[in-house]
Amino acid sequence: MNGTGPTVEGPLAIVCGGGSFPVAVADAVARNGRRVVLFPLKGWADPSAVARYPHHWVGLAQFGRICRLAHQEGCRDVVIIGSVIRPKVSQLRPDLRTLRLLPRIVRLFRGGDDHLLSGIGRIVEEHGFKLVGAHEAAPAILVSHGTLGQRQPSAADIADAQRGFGVLAAIGPFDVGQAVVVAGNRVLAVEAAEGTDEMLARLATLRGAGRIQHAAGTGVLVKAPKPGQERRLDLPSIGARTVDGAAAARLAGIAVAAGNVITADIADLVRAADAAGLFVIGVDPAGERTG
Amino acid sequence: MNGTGPTVEGPLAIVCGGGSFPVAVADAVARNGRRVVLFPLKGWADPSAVARYPHHWVGLAQFGRICRLAHQEGCRDVVIIGSVIRPKVSQLRPDLRTLRLLPRIVRLFRGGDDHLLSGIGRIVEEHGFKLVGAHEAAPAILVSHGTLGQRQPSAADIADAQRGFGVLAAIGPFDVGQAVVVAGNRVLAVEAAEGTDEMLARLATLRGAGRIQHAAGTGVLVKAPKPGQERRLDLPSIGARTVDGAAAARLAGIAVAAGNVITADIADLVRAADAAGLFVIGVDPAGERTG
Repeated sequence: MNGTGPTVEGPLAIVCGGGSFPVAVADAVARNGRRVVLFPLKGWADPSAVARYPHHWVGLAQFGRICRLAHQEGCRDVVIIGSVIRPKVSQLRPDLRTLRLLPRIVRLFRGGDDHLLSGIGRIVEEHGFKLVGAHEAAPAILVSHGTLGQRQPSAADIADAQRGFGVLAAIGPFDVGQAVVVAGNRVLAVEAAEGTDEMLARLATLRGAGRIQHAAGTGVLVKAPKPGQERRLDLPSIGARTVDGAAAARLAGIAVAAGNVITADIADLVRAADAAGLFVIGVDPAGERTG
Repeated sequence: MNGTGPTVEGPLAIVCGGGSFPVAVADAVARNGRRVVLFPLKGWADPSAVARYPHHWVGLAQFGRICRLAHQEGCRDVVIIGSVIRPKVSQLRPDLRTLRLLPRIVRLFRGGDDHLLSGIGRIVEEHGFKLVGAHEAAPAILVSHGTLGQRQPSAADIADAQRGFGVLAAIGPFDVGQAVVVAGNRVLAVEAAEGTDEMLARLATLRGAGRIQHAAGTGVLVKAPKPGQERRLDLPSIGARTVDGAAAARLAGIAVAAGNVITADIADLVRAADAAGLFVIGVDPAGERTG
């Protein structure tokens, strides 16, 4: 976060995975008067969502094609945003340029997500582009400091959030997850390969089975980026579905590292939180990380 | 672990929760010629299993009754072993002595497992007993250094195990879980309130859904006690069911902190591991913890 944002010369290339983020970013950038060119990924991006903007459908491993088209469109800045569940290397059907990069990409797949993403970032930049974080191009998607919606966290909720940030900081070097749930000072769940939605579903099941003794309406979902994470490619996100999952798990609310977690539709997030009676708060992680 | 074991004077009181550990400990202690008196917990202990030894059924919150009977039986050393899923305070039906301790017990319930267990340990000792770890009274239940069964871990498996021990050491101060799964250097799962069996079931599901790209037959379940954990009351355990869960998750094997993880029936564990083709290894955690 340097506060200056990307250079505004030329159109912005947005490589679009699944979900609602790619178009949220395109809308926010276009609202500021900058031209966007979308590169929706076949099999991931939503066709109806990208139709409103100039776009070129591309395969996930058609790196040569993406480079050629982006150069033709005059794009220097590239945003890569949206979900791409770790694909099998065998499914990639690489073009020639990707093929040349393949041994390197295969090596990248060996590590955690961070290892993979920072490697992709380097490859993009080596091909003459500037990789720009979606949140840098479209700061409107960031959850900022303070409470969204009506409900306020209690002092106990804030203590749970602090403990959660502490756990995330501790596991950060191991490139694990970006989310934990803490209730009454007890760590109930740590996210890894399953993702946030499934972690919340597990807690809902445990609570339903009487295996969590903390009263319903206690517990905080805490999300923050990993320390050293490639933030231009992978900031943690929340949305109305996260609120619904947290509500099903009977939590009190959601605390995120302010300015470091993104949401595709903040109005929708606030509506969901208010409907469920949950708090959503952006907390300054610098002050809260109690190692 | 001081290697000297408990004082051998007088009979050993064993407060028995659920599962096969209580009788495994009773058998191991009785084999050495020491008298045991069991205090099976109503609702948790297995009636058929305790029948072979002198025993007194007790309620979980009948602390006064346990003290009185243990004193009558001449027991000074007490082992508390077996599963008691965190009970609701409202279900405890405390006797008079427990009632007097109740405010303190309620406070203990607020923290993580460790907080609860170390508090229980202190209460037991304040009432004139010596709390002895099940593994101190019955060292035969410890998984020691080296490989059990036929299969040997590969160098990659050992690297995954090392990373797992590192993650466990990092989250230890937060009193979270005692188990993680690592495959190809990637942390796939971290255990918290759900327990090891459910964490493994989750991985089996993720693998079945194609959401884990590491080849079947890779990945290591790693178990170790939390740093500072009350080891006399809560050492992590493995058994044939753990092997079955790891096999269903298509892991390569199980690595545990040698001398710090217990198993109720080592022959059964080895049989299960060999039948599933998994390795089970006790690793010296001192040399392996890469913070």
